[in-house]
Amino acid sequence: MSRRQALDALAGCRRRIDAVDLEILELLNRRTRIVEEIGAIKQRFQMPVYEPRREDEVYRNVLSHNGGPLPPEAVKRIYERIIDEMRTLQKAKMEQS
Amino acid sequence: MSRRQALDALAGCRRRIDAVDLEILELLNRRTRIVEEIGAIKQRFQMPVYEPRREDEVYRNVLSHNGGPLPPEAVKRIYERIIDEMRTLQKAKMEQS
Repeated sequence: MSRRQALDALAGCRRRIDAVDLEILELLNRRTRIVEEIGAIKQRFQMPVYEPRREDEVYRNVLSHNGGPLPPEAVKRIYERIIDEMRTLQKAKMEQS
Repeated sequence: MSRRQALDALAGCRRRIDAVDLEILELLNRRTRIVEEIGAIKQRFQMPVYEPRREDEVYRNVLSHNGGPLPPEAVKRIYERIIDEMRTLQKAKMEQS
């Protein structure tokens, strides 16, 4: 492989990453919409937003299905960020209304 | 909607979230595999792992395609975590070999 071919291969990898990222983004927004549905139900029935047991279930779901190469600690930290962002959004919505 | 129906609806939402999470997990691992391909090419041609301009491109890609409801700052923070995890993984691999 020449340096020129290497640069072409890198460009191809990056195009594939950009496409995967748009799929991830779509799924993150789909997840957010479901979290919003949950928020609306919880608000109507005055249920708590934060449910640590349910959050543990979310971690268990992804960690038990992780075939790698992403290591479990990395999956956990990415999910902590996702859950935290959606919880924050949920709280802000409930305080607004 | 009775409280019983609300609990059923919540359970349904959670099942949908669990399914979306497995799709996100699959894409995160697919993304990691492409990052590993990039790492192998970079190592062979002694190119730097950290390329701030490419990272800006990744943020621009997701932010310019974000239709919400996830706000841009949340997308940015989730992507900071994803990029950081994959960069760490990449560096560890290159040091190993």
